[in-house]
Amino acid sequence: MIDKNQETQRLVSANRILAREKVVDAFGHVSIRSPQNSGQYIMSRSRSPALVEFSDLMEFTMDGEAIDLQGRTTYGERMIHGGIYEARPEINAVVHNHCLAVLPFSLTGTPLKPAIHVAAVIGEEIPVWDIRDHFGETDMLVRTMEQARQMTTAMGSSSCLLMRGHGAVIAGRNLKEAVMIAVYLQVNAAVQTEAMKMGEPVYLSAGEIKLLTETQFSALAMDRAWEHFCTRAGVETN
Amino acid sequence: MIDKNQETQRLVSANRILAREKVVDAFGHVSIRSPQNSGQYIMSRSRSPALVEFSDLMEFTMDGEAIDLQGRTTYGERMIHGGIYEARPEINAVVHNHCLAVLPFSLTGTPLKPAIHVAAVIGEEIPVWDIRDHFGETDMLVRTMEQARQMTTAMGSSSCLLMRGHGAVIAGRNLKEAVMIAVYLQVNAAVQTEAMKMGEPVYLSAGEIKLLTETQFSALAMDRAWEHFCTRAGVETN
Amino acid sequence: MIDKNQETQRLVSANRILAREKVVDAFGHVSIRSPQNSGQYIMSRSRSPALVEFSDLMEFTMDGEAIDLQGRTTYGERMIHGGIYEARPEINAVVHNHCLAVLPFSLTGTPLKPAIHVAAVIGEEIPVWDIRDHFGETDMLVRTMEQARQMTTAMGSSSCLLMRGHGAVIAGRNLKEAVMIAVYLQVNAAVQTEAMKMGEPVYLSAGEIKLLTETQFSALAMDRAWEHFCTRAGVETN
Amino acid sequence: MIDKNQETQRLVSANRILAREKVVDAFGHVSIRSPQNSGQYIMSRSRSPALVEFSDLMEFTMDGEAIDLQGRTTYGERMIHGGIYEARPEINAVVHNHCLAVLPFSLTGTPLKPAIHVAAVIGEEIPVWDIRDHFGETDMLVRTMEQARQMTTAMGSSSCLLMRGHGAVIAGRNLKEAVMIAVYLQVNAAVQTEAMKMGEPVYLSAGEIKLLTETQFSALAMDRAWEHFCTRAGVETN
Repeated sequence: MIDKNQETQRLVSANRILAREKVVDAFGHVSIRSPQNSGQYIMSRSRSPALVEFSDLMEFTMDGEAIDLQGRTTYGERMIHGGIYEARPEINAVVHNHCLAVLPFSLTGTPLKPAIHVAAVIGEEIPVWDIRDHFGETDMLVRTMEQARQMTTAMGSSSCLLMRGHGAVIAGRNLKEAVMIAVYLQVNAAVQTEAMKMGEPVYLSAGEIKLLTETQFSALAMDRAWEHFCTRAGVETN
Repeated sequence: MIDKNQETQRLVSANRILAREKVVDAFGHVSIRSPQNSGQYIMSRSRSPALVEFSDLMEFTMDGEAIDLQGRTTYGERMIHGGIYEARPEINAVVHNHCLAVLPFSLTGTPLKPAIHVAAVIGEEIPVWDIRDHFGETDMLVRTMEQARQMTTAMGSSSCLLMRGHGAVIAGRNLKEAVMIAVYLQVNAAVQTEAMKMGEPVYLSAGEIKLLTETQFSALAMDRAWEHFCTRAGVETN
Repeated sequence: MIDKNQETQRLVSANRILAREKVVDAFGHVSIRSPQNSGQYIMSRSRSPALVEFSDLMEFTMDGEAIDLQGRTTYGERMIHGGIYEARPEINAVVHNHCLAVLPFSLTGTPLKPAIHVAAVIGEEIPVWDIRDHFGETDMLVRTMEQARQMTTAMGSSSCLLMRGHGAVIAGRNLKEAVMIAVYLQVNAAVQTEAMKMGEPVYLSAGEIKLLTETQFSALAMDRAWEHFCTRAGVETN
Repeated sequence: MIDKNQETQRLVSANRILAREKVVDAFGHVSIRSPQNSGQYIMSRSRSPALVEFSDLMEFTMDGEAIDLQGRTTYGERMIHGGIYEARPEINAVVHNHCLAVLPFSLTGTPLKPAIHVAAVIGEEIPVWDIRDHFGETDMLVRTMEQARQMTTAMGSSSCLLMRGHGAVIAGRNLKEAVMIAVYLQVNAAVQTEAMKMGEPVYLSAGEIKLLTETQFSALAMDRAWEHFCTRAGVETN
């Protein structure tokens, strides 16, 4: 049974927030590294994030084996999460989604780059990964640890990765940061899309990205945003 | 009187879902092949899908004759449904709509093609049919079985057909599949529209479409999406 | 006092519908020719259409004089309505709005033309009128009968007129038709805008427009749409 | 303690309105010059505008010092407000936001200019200010009075200023005017963005801007809009 603490309760909130902000639809998922056991992660059973409740949470080994399956259906792409937690000890929360504003970038090779200050947290470089380049024709889902590891390698130390024709992966040091990145990834994508039609946008400089990321991840900004997101999603601020 | 069973109750849900997901507005309709009689189909009386209740359902012969009219008004384009059921025994659910994201493709001949993995179910090729090519200047509605049969021929074995300046027809092996296709047809259209402004999008390959369609039509994906859609539409998951 | 009958109650509904469908925002207005006196028209006092109640309705002479002012504030542009009723006896309802999808056409001279079948009712030709061409630099509001008459002349027998940098005027034989035209004017504008970015859209032919207008204005289509609009706007279907 | 009067209660309403109209999201803020002391200004503690309540209001000196901090967290960019109030005695309300429709203009140097009549109030010229030009690489926030003064100089006597990759600043003679300008700044941006894709838009002339601004700031227009905005935001019209 999953321990009911601030981290796991926030994971339920994060599901609802990502749904409310249209970062996920029927598909997509979010996980945290287990606070009790850094070699495991926690995510919902296979369910639309908009509907996830505490009792839906399950624990998994890095390889995606359920600790206590209880006959439940699990997300087919949970390996994405294990692959990242395994390789990147600093990462404690992962989001996978298919949000609309981001997808055109994954299809055309147009670099998605931080242009607006609240989106500096998406990071200077966002690689695009195409499963077909490495595994040929598949159903495009990351189903095996081998695929997840290949994807994680392509992601490097980035906060975000785009998957061609599929969506995005977002990795955060903690859950609130992962949610913040996921939300503003799509905001930046929408603004950049329109700006590129007008001319060549000025992007944030490397120095601005560094300084802005500190600002955006400060308690001042994070607390304000988390209260805002929780209220909009109809969950208690936790 | 229409038998109240899972299939017919789902047909009411499908009406509400398609309205909630903006696949239909005041116009558009959805039907199923009758579970009791494969030579008949069931759809609502003429009413906005957002408002359809169980008591609105009616049964029709393949030729569009109401089994028990009771003085009710019927959809003027119900022939679309009969034409497809008559010619394609594998099809058990049909949606007709005018959704905004799809219409520009019907007007310009720009091929609408699956680019995002959840939309593989729309199929590799989506023909565009222009009633004017075959029947001259009309009010563009498919009003006769002759028109419906011509349209069905143009559709071939595709899941989707675009009608110039009018909308789309979606055919599914069952109702949930037809709803899934109709929802992701417009999502793919919106993403492809923006992607084409950035450059030449990479589309799904034939092999990917085949494998992805199996995945997307699996119980895992269908159940998750159906619960999501039903909850958003405010109907019981059935 | 305004007589409470189906026509006047529908006028309240029309205000709410146009607000719900984003045809109007804080500004814009809708009127009907008085059912009791064809030389007068009825519209709300100056108030956002979203908030209009029966008690807000007022009656005006063709010249825009309130029959019974009671100290209320009136719409500054009510002359638009009088100008049209005065010149066009077949018109019994008028909408004036600033809807976003339509405005770019008013700014660029790009012809807004019916491309989708539900929008045939907007008519084959939609003139663009620039108050500056006739009255020099003004606050762009149609404030005098002289301006209204000039505008009505430019409109001719069209159902719609665009005003440069300002909005649209819609004239209908009855209120339901005016609402239908106003709603689908913006839908057509949005679809045409995207289609033009893909290529040269196929527009409806003159013959199609004629036949489709009859279909769209039939009781079958009008009743379905009116029930749909009323329910969405939270008013009784009347 | 903040005096509860019409001005301060309207400030709470303005927070909710700007959130409802998507002018602000988790970030952004609005202030008024103190009605009791023209050398001070009033704004919320650091909180998402959607959630601001009366008890969140705080008073600041022109230099951004809280009169009565009570341990509360304050907006990091409150200097924007002090900088403007200090230099422009005619200004009594300031909005700072990051609204999406406006950002592309800040990134590309494309002039944002009033094209639609309700947006004349944004003013003939809207400067774009880049903090990097004056202060090098920063976290892009206006954190010091020196930065705020430089920004205010760049703004001149304009109603609006765009900040590169960041957002906008709006200054009004009173709170209702500032809200009106902020709302229609984004409406004009959205319309202009689409119009520019069709061709060269006709913009408002200098004479029209002057006359329209008087009209839009008249009691007739302001009262109608304020009631509309308050009702949509779920606050009492005050």
